Amino acid sequence: MKLADLTTPALVVDAQALDQNLKLMSQALPGPRLRPHVKAHKCTALARRQLEAGHRGFTCATIREVAGMAAAGLGEDLLLANEVLDCSRLGRVEARVTVAVDSEATIDAAARGGVKEVLIDVNIGLPRCGCQPQLAAPLAELARKKGLVVRGVMGYEGHVVGLEDRALRQELTEECMDILMAAHEEVGGELISAGGTGTYDTNTRATEIQAGSYALMDTTYAKLDIPFQQALAVLSTVISVNPNGYAVCNSGLKSLGMDHGNPGMDDGHSVFLVADEHITFGPAAPVVVGDLVRVRPAHVDPTVAYHERIHLVSGDDVLETWAVDLRGW
Amino acid sequence: MKLADLTTPALVVDAQALDQNLKLMSQALPGPRLRPHVKAHKCTALARRQLEAGHRGFTCATIREVAGMAAAGLGEDLLLANEVLDCSRLGRVEARVTVAVDSEATIDAAARGGVKEVLIDVNIGLPRCGCQPQLAAPLAELARKKGLVVRGVMGYEGHVVGLEDRALRQELTEECMDILMAAHEEVGGELISAGGTGTYDTNTRATEIQAGSYALMDTTYAKLDIPFQQALAVLSTVISVNPNGYAVCNSGLKSLGMDHGNPGMDDGHSVFLVADEHITFGPAAPVVVGDLVRVRPAHVDPTVAYHERIHLVSGDDVLETWAVDLRGW
Repeated sequence: MKLADLTTPALVVDAQALDQNLKLMSQALPGPRLRPHVKAHKCTALARRQLEAGHRGFTCATIREVAGMAAAGLGEDLLLANEVLDCSRLGRVEARVTVAVDSEATIDAAARGGVKEVLIDVNIGLPRCGCQPQLAAPLAELARKKGLVVRGVMGYEGHVVGLEDRALRQELTEECMDILMAAHEEVGGELISAGGTGTYDTNTRATEIQAGSYALMDTTYAKLDIPFQQALAVLSTVISVNPNGYAVCNSGLKSLGMDHGNPGMDDGHSVFLVADEHITFGPAAPVVVGDLVRVRPAHVDPTVAYHERIHLVSGDDVLETWAVDLRGW
Repeated sequence: MKLADLTTPALVVDAQALDQNLKLMSQALPGPRLRPHVKAHKCTALARRQLEAGHRGFTCATIREVAGMAAAGLGEDLLLANEVLDCSRLGRVEARVTVAVDSEATIDAAARGGVKEVLIDVNIGLPRCGCQPQLAAPLAELARKKGLVVRGVMGYEGHVVGLEDRALRQELTEECMDILMAAHEEVGGELISAGGTGTYDTNTRATEIQAGSYALMDTTYAKLDIPFQQALAVLSTVISVNPNGYAVCNSGLKSLGMDHGNPGMDDGHSVFLVADEHITFGPAAPVVVGDLVRVRPAHVDPTVAYHERIHLVSGDDVLETWAVDLRGW
């Protein structure tokens, strides 16, 4: 199958770039030092590649992701790095499942739902989930009282991962990890789980890094001084060319996560306007109706979540087609 | 079934608000004066409600939408209001299908693909698809030479539909329609298809209006002086409450279209931060873990496209659950 045979818009992943990204990361963080986050690709076939690169434990953001990974035989050690209340669904998953907890209510839900293992989620600066650091120890005690195994702590320096200044990123990562290490000191357990693609090499104190974006990458992470390449593009077809100097292709708001702003485009084309199923762009060189163009998402995770399939490509060849089988909740 | 039984995040539609929106629109634009755009909800069950309100022709944005509407028995008169090149898929749909064309290439594709009827898409000011007005007549002639029936013209004043100043919206609608009416004069045919929810009552010259958002509505359209209510919300569960004055619920970038900015929330809560599966918000009144909250999307179309189901609700009751069955391409 060739690129030209695909129905567009289509998610395409460059096979060489993906391989290179997986290889670089597994060299930097071999085996259990990385717990790849599947929310970035929602694709068990891609997760299997990460497993083949040596990482046997995975991070998930939703119960659907946990259940789908287990169903695909990738359930050796799944961490749901998010608070959930409907733990009965989670408790039925046939896999080793650990869930993040940050309150009495989420501990109760885990215990009632039949989940056996938890991590204490500690707030290390990002205004989101995670308990206050001084509550980590009492929550761990409560969890153990309720019969749960506390495997350790997690935290997410999400306000740090995107900082372009490496020195600042390093400094703030240390501050976040000071908090998490102190909490771990009191909580115990073998896991200190933290980090993301932006701090994969500045966070040296976590026992495992929850990076996801590194595999496919996006234009936002591409601004950082990290060695991963943009493997993902939305292949699009030029459907209209206007003599006033612009053209239109058929991807848009329903095939691209837009929270980080407009996408980029290959070949020097400039994005002007994004609508539901259209991108109006200024071509760097003349294009004609029917041309294929590559659009580069600003944010990989919410882009992938719009698509049913990922096509692994090399040049003009489509090597494999993978289901994006972890969507929904 | 009750609201509390739903897996969140979940798209919920208030039954009374939806009914009222459908009724108001069918009174303003009865029967064929409205060609509801299904891209706003991607749901054949909701389209059936629009049919029951008197509108038998529909507007689509993708081949998948056309095929899905036909498969659901809603194919009496389907307009694909967008340029496409893979018309062989479109030509196989068993329904009355009309496609927008704006170039020789798209006319060729329609003729080769076995599509029988077209509209000449005319650019009336929005920098997107549509031919230059002076090319409408020659393109119509070309289409007829190739054996296609030209049913008329279409245009979209997409740069006007969101203007909050009614007088300006009215004035610019007239300017756009001057162009489209002149093109129609030369092209002929029974259809002059244009408009959207924002110009449903300022565009009085089109024979049919392609409005979609009016049924469900969003916070962006809610700023206009139009009578439609916000029927759609993303029902979310509070998963974490921080003593520093914020809380977190479990919807986010993968359940909300973000191109128009952050969503709103009911009950006076303020959105601070949106992440993949989290919204950090400032509660107007204390909330506890497990509370259900309603998030109001800024843009309905790319929100719906993330979800598998729409739940029709009334108070705490879930009345019906509909598949969002027109997603993808």
